[in-house]
Amino acid sequence: MSRWNDAAEAVYPEMVKWRRYLHMNPELSFQESQTAAFVASLLREWGIAVRTGVGGHGVVAKIEGAVQGPTVALRADMDALPIQDEKNCEYASQVPGVMHACGHDAHTATLLGVAKLIQDNKDRLAGNVVFLFQPAEETTPGGALEMIRDGALEGVDVIYGVHLWSPFEAGAAYCKPGAIMAAADEFIIEVKGKGGHGGLPHQTVDSVYVASQLVVNFQGIVSRFSDPTQPCVVTVGSFHSGTSFNVIAETATLKGTVRTFDPELRLQVKRHLEEIVEHTCRMNGAECLVKYNLGYPPVINHASEEERFRKAASLALGEAGVRTSPLIMAGEDYAYYLERVPGCFMFVGAGRKERGIVHPHHHPRFDIDEIAMLHAAKLFIAMIEDYLAEHAYSR
Amino acid sequence: MSRWNDAAEAVYPEMVKWRRYLHMNPELSFQESQTAAFVASLLREWGIAVRTGVGGHGVVAKIEGAVQGPTVALRADMDALPIQDEKNCEYASQVPGVMHACGHDAHTATLLGVAKLIQDNKDRLAGNVVFLFQPAEETTPGGALEMIRDGALEGVDVIYGVHLWSPFEAGAAYCKPGAIMAAADEFIIEVKGKGGHGGLPHQTVDSVYVASQLVVNFQGIVSRFSDPTQPCVVTVGSFHSGTSFNVIAETATLKGTVRTFDPELRLQVKRHLEEIVEHTCRMNGAECLVKYNLGYPPVINHASEEERFRKAASLALGEAGVRTSPLIMAGEDYAYYLERVPGCFMFVGAGRKERGIVHPHHHPRFDIDEIAMLHAAKLFIAMIEDYLAEHAYSR
Amino acid sequence: MSRWNDAAEAVYPEMVKWRRYLHMNPELSFQESQTAAFVASLLREWGIAVRTGVGGHGVVAKIEGAVQGPTVALRADMDALPIQDEKNCEYASQVPGVMHACGHDAHTATLLGVAKLIQDNKDRLAGNVVFLFQPAEETTPGGALEMIRDGALEGVDVIYGVHLWSPFEAGAAYCKPGAIMAAADEFIIEVKGKGGHGGLPHQTVDSVYVASQLVVNFQGIVSRFSDPTQPCVVTVGSFHSGTSFNVIAETATLKGTVRTFDPELRLQVKRHLEEIVEHTCRMNGAECLVKYNLGYPPVINHASEEERFRKAASLALGEAGVRTSPLIMAGEDYAYYLERVPGCFMFVGAGRKERGIVHPHHHPRFDIDEIAMLHAAKLFIAMIEDYLAEHAYSR
Amino acid sequence: MSRWNDAAEAVYPEMVKWRRYLHMNPELSFQESQTAAFVASLLREWGIAVRTGVGGHGVVAKIEGAVQGPTVALRADMDALPIQDEKNCEYASQVPGVMHACGHDAHTATLLGVAKLIQDNKDRLAGNVVFLFQPAEETTPGGALEMIRDGALEGVDVIYGVHLWSPFEAGAAYCKPGAIMAAADEFIIEVKGKGGHGGLPHQTVDSVYVASQLVVNFQGIVSRFSDPTQPCVVTVGSFHSGTSFNVIAETATLKGTVRTFDPELRLQVKRHLEEIVEHTCRMNGAECLVKYNLGYPPVINHASEEERFRKAASLALGEAGVRTSPLIMAGEDYAYYLERVPGCFMFVGAGRKERGIVHPHHHPRFDIDEIAMLHAAKLFIAMIEDYLAEHAYSR
Repeated sequence: MSRWNDAAEAVYPEMVKWRRYLHMNPELSFQESQTAAFVASLLREWGIAVRTGVGGHGVVAKIEGAVQGPTVALRADMDALPIQDEKNCEYASQVPGVMHACGHDAHTATLLGVAKLIQDNKDRLAGNVVFLFQPAEETTPGGALEMIRDGALEGVDVIYGVHLWSPFEAGAAYCKPGAIMAAADEFIIEVKGKGGHGGLPHQTVDSVYVASQLVVNFQGIVSRFSDPTQPCVVTVGSFHSGTSFNVIAETATLKGTVRTFDPELRLQVKRHLEEIVEHTCRMNGAECLVKYNLGYPPVINHASEEERFRKAASLALGEAGVRTSPLIMAGEDYAYYLERVPGCFMFVGAGRKERGIVHPHHHPRFDIDEIAMLHAAKLFIAMIEDYLAEHAYSR
Repeated sequence: MSRWNDAAEAVYPEMVKWRRYLHMNPELSFQESQTAAFVASLLREWGIAVRTGVGGHGVVAKIEGAVQGPTVALRADMDALPIQDEKNCEYASQVPGVMHACGHDAHTATLLGVAKLIQDNKDRLAGNVVFLFQPAEETTPGGALEMIRDGALEGVDVIYGVHLWSPFEAGAAYCKPGAIMAAADEFIIEVKGKGGHGGLPHQTVDSVYVASQLVVNFQGIVSRFSDPTQPCVVTVGSFHSGTSFNVIAETATLKGTVRTFDPELRLQVKRHLEEIVEHTCRMNGAECLVKYNLGYPPVINHASEEERFRKAASLALGEAGVRTSPLIMAGEDYAYYLERVPGCFMFVGAGRKERGIVHPHHHPRFDIDEIAMLHAAKLFIAMIEDYLAEHAYSR
Repeated sequence: MSRWNDAAEAVYPEMVKWRRYLHMNPELSFQESQTAAFVASLLREWGIAVRTGVGGHGVVAKIEGAVQGPTVALRADMDALPIQDEKNCEYASQVPGVMHACGHDAHTATLLGVAKLIQDNKDRLAGNVVFLFQPAEETTPGGALEMIRDGALEGVDVIYGVHLWSPFEAGAAYCKPGAIMAAADEFIIEVKGKGGHGGLPHQTVDSVYVASQLVVNFQGIVSRFSDPTQPCVVTVGSFHSGTSFNVIAETATLKGTVRTFDPELRLQVKRHLEEIVEHTCRMNGAECLVKYNLGYPPVINHASEEERFRKAASLALGEAGVRTSPLIMAGEDYAYYLERVPGCFMFVGAGRKERGIVHPHHHPRFDIDEIAMLHAAKLFIAMIEDYLAEHAYSR
Repeated sequence: MSRWNDAAEAVYPEMVKWRRYLHMNPELSFQESQTAAFVASLLREWGIAVRTGVGGHGVVAKIEGAVQGPTVALRADMDALPIQDEKNCEYASQVPGVMHACGHDAHTATLLGVAKLIQDNKDRLAGNVVFLFQPAEETTPGGALEMIRDGALEGVDVIYGVHLWSPFEAGAAYCKPGAIMAAADEFIIEVKGKGGHGGLPHQTVDSVYVASQLVVNFQGIVSRFSDPTQPCVVTVGSFHSGTSFNVIAETATLKGTVRTFDPELRLQVKRHLEEIVEHTCRMNGAECLVKYNLGYPPVINHASEEERFRKAASLALGEAGVRTSPLIMAGEDYAYYLERVPGCFMFVGAGRKERGIVHPHHHPRFDIDEIAMLHAAKLFIAMIEDYLAEHAYSR
């Protein structure tokens, strides 16, 4: 492993360079054409077989080792967010209102670095490595499903992914068996009451009142109807109704998100929320419309690959660098890969308090300690090494 | 009285003409310069003493009778509303987005008609009549207070006002002793929570949730804290919070109105609402800001003048035209006059179902049966007659 | 009238005696056998025709005047309450746990006094007077309906009733046109959830939570669904559920009352409350059972008889003794009489602050200023006189 | 290990006999005198040193091995519950209203069996084993603290405990690192309003309404204020207020339980619940009294001992018998031992669906598959063996 680690350190300055380029040139979900071209161009330059336009702007590269063996996939996401960069640094975004505020630039740069390393050493590789540069992770339905439909997982035996994570200090990697990231579903509720004079409520159906009852009633989904050992969140993020003091509003619109880790609970919550809406509206004489969009499923790590993480992370980052991840309430379309092939999703600490790298993901001042890219690269390589060693084809 | 009624019928066609002119040329509250000029010009043409610019665009006219006696004031309001006229008729508003959707055009025309009648007959008048053409009834703080401060009630012994009312069929007049129109107060509530990730509610203070609890908790003000025999309404007319599905909103803004008839209850409700806001916010860790604007006080008729109404309306409209008014949940700055001098406020039916005149006040298709102006004029004159007869100076 | 008043004052000491006897010997609703016997015995002693056992323990007496004319009925109720008398006086109840805490003893004594007076003066009576001594006013379905079914109103042209009322100071009488006392309905709600371990709410349906939501949701019936000018009360008087800290309760029982004055609103509230129960339970997976008992209808005075009250009360108590009653939120089965014949129900002030007679009805220390009986007797006689004078048969 | 397993199987029939004797003779918490005497008598019969009356009815036995080494403690609880046994079997409880409905009889019998086995083999024991027979686990403050104060843990290096668990099928053992059983706290809330007439809510403070709001507001503690990845339950188990339909209740009493696993969250919930009570009462004009009793802390397993469990359970029950326990929402005063010395708490499956052994703990038909005692005994011995081997004193 130490040889790999040295090699990774050698390529690290380039990873930084690539990441900063991408950081200055962010592209929104489903619009990652320049990013994909940048990635494909580098990979081809290094002599790697590349397929572009996979499920949209996806790029799939494949390196075949000198010795036959199984195929390991690594995945990075490439899209940025509609956020105005507020950082004061030379690599700040040059695109107004668009920013790599979630670290996908670094994911891409890391995977490029790993690809270069593997390509340089493919003569001693007993198997293949596939690199998935995925578009559109930030916006449902996401890019993963389209890449899968377009064959990105063909021949893949196992898949690994990493998220650099600023709430964790740089220097350690985190994983856990089973569910690690939440299913993230969305709902829009339209309450249709009957507007009227603010002093004559009996001639109306007050949609502000009905929708407020909905928000209060939703609390019971988590507090009474969910297994307390099963994390569950129901959040109404926006509530808009009415225009004036003294007119009872005809309609109210609620938007919100539901987070769960258990697939069964996920559907129970959907059903229960819909029942609360229906009955709360009916008891008040209001009509309702619920659009409930099931978003990404939970990211569920395979036990064997999580065990591999413990070994690999120890080799890559030392014993102190191996941590058990808490459940992360955010969602990830990486989940779709793990529904189809074994693998795991890992977090790599990317915060650095002493240098002010403390802002959470999606914050206008979000940044990472770039050394995290090196850690992630080492972790990827250790995972590949361990998997291929274990699953080497008998000769 | 019959002679007066005949005279009123003779002037009615002119009232229609004036009303339609005003309907086509509406002016918003505090901007009634042309309307005031129109009124003053007519009055002066008839030889009536006029004071303009009273408390803004107010016009005060005074006719002194041949015989000394007390002074009766009549009041009309002149302002229009920011509503687009949707009627299909030749006298529809010619000002985009501005409309006489509350009948103030007809109030003004009626009072002009009465002024002309009185002026024509002042030689047999044992007392004086003052005509108050008031601006800005639709918008607090309203025009009444300013006119009063500017001397409009000086020397006035009693005051009468009429509202033409489309929910009542034309042909009858309505009054009641004591409170007849509501105090109409307004509030704005800012809930300041702490925004954050929709999946991490424990790191936030969810202002959508807190504000929804407020709306639910406000119901108890009416259902538990108010005397059930005392009408009281607390309406939240608008609720705005948050921008996205998955972000917990930092702030929420509620706007609403409170309607009461009892001055003590009015202040109790204010205090109780403020306490609910304070404690609901504090129990959730939120901060709050309440702006509570006391609007017009309730319109409270004097018992003796309400009794006069029963006699006068019978003379003006026949026995079948005398009705007891229900409580009207709307507010009126006429209330300020009755806080200072005796008098009453009366409603005159102005709807006509068979001709489609059914839309409520403030509706874009609001209209009146113009015959209601004639009824109102007759009622005003009967009130004047009866009052002056009762209070004639002994000689 | 003054002659009548003098006669009433002469019989007053006996009314006090009878009232105190009854106060010491109270009987619960439907058990008024001794009270009825006492009443019948006195009436017969005075030579009045009496029918006993009318609709239970009811007593009906009839005095025919010397001159033919219409028939006026007066009604008193006779039953006491299951309350322990806590007064410290020689006429306190001698029956443990039973007490005339609502003044029915005085109603009965007053009517006896009036009967004696009328009998003594029947030679100058141009009509008839019927005396209804009614059992069981305190408990639905009440005694009025049974007496009516048993013919108590046969031949009756008009009916008057009085309630002595301690919240009003003695010396005045109160009435109002239209509704004066509320419809008083009752409900019992059984919420059937699913019990279980207090730490495992998801395996249960928490009936404490569901029933609490019901109580909160009921507030909207009054605050949003009722015409604010129409008094309406929904009260949950008792809530019982569960037995221990850490076991989720299987069932919850709510009992409550609904008060309204408008017959249509009364049925709307019933329907709306039932809908709230159904939908709140269904959205939580609970079952429910609602028993909704329509109790006494509202007491609605006839306008002409209320006008008579103004004249009669003035004669009986002086001009200062004529008051407009507020709406009284309590119910009365007197309402059934007014559904069938014209008439009115009146309150006679019976409190006396300076002598500590301040406790509300149904209080263990309730008492009356006995002079109120004299006032009531005078009022009854003035009503009779006026009615018979107006409706005298032409000869 | 196999020799131990054979020995355990040999003593198993006696364990069954002891368990059934105890099952027929249950004693409530703090009254376990006969149970303690039974235990002490057997231990002494086998020549084991016994101390009785430890912290109440506690019994502490100690076996010193032939070779010096560390000291391992095992703990069993002895008390029964105030439940009527509804089982139909020859060993059903003979004490009316008292029943071993939680398996403590079997815990005691298992520990007796282990003690006999260890005593028979103490010549090859490199260390000591202490047996803690504890009273009063079912009722706070519980018996553990008193035994500890009375020296039960003196010289103890590690402690193990087992709970037989009918929701898990017999044949497997369950553990998890960190928190495994909940902190179980209790609260009583008295809401003091102001009683009054059911039709006059404005003259009262309605304690049914206030307490219902409390129940609804408590839901937010779990749904909005707790980290969704941290299990938390707030249950109101009983709600009692009022006595009649039409009287507004003066007071309401709520009783409930709070379950948490995180010590910090535990105190936050207490504080937040108290704030909700205070502010909800204050906004309604009610007074309140909260008694909040912190019960047993969470049971938190030490990581090293949980790892030992994996090895030991595999030896005792086979690889398939090693399971990861879910979080158990119940509380246990075993938690106090683990606050003082390392160790762990383990569950041993005791259900058997095919034989109808399916009732949950505290159910009147609760029973266990007695073979679970043998499994527990084997598990205890494997834990002891492994610990002593690892920590053997160097010679």
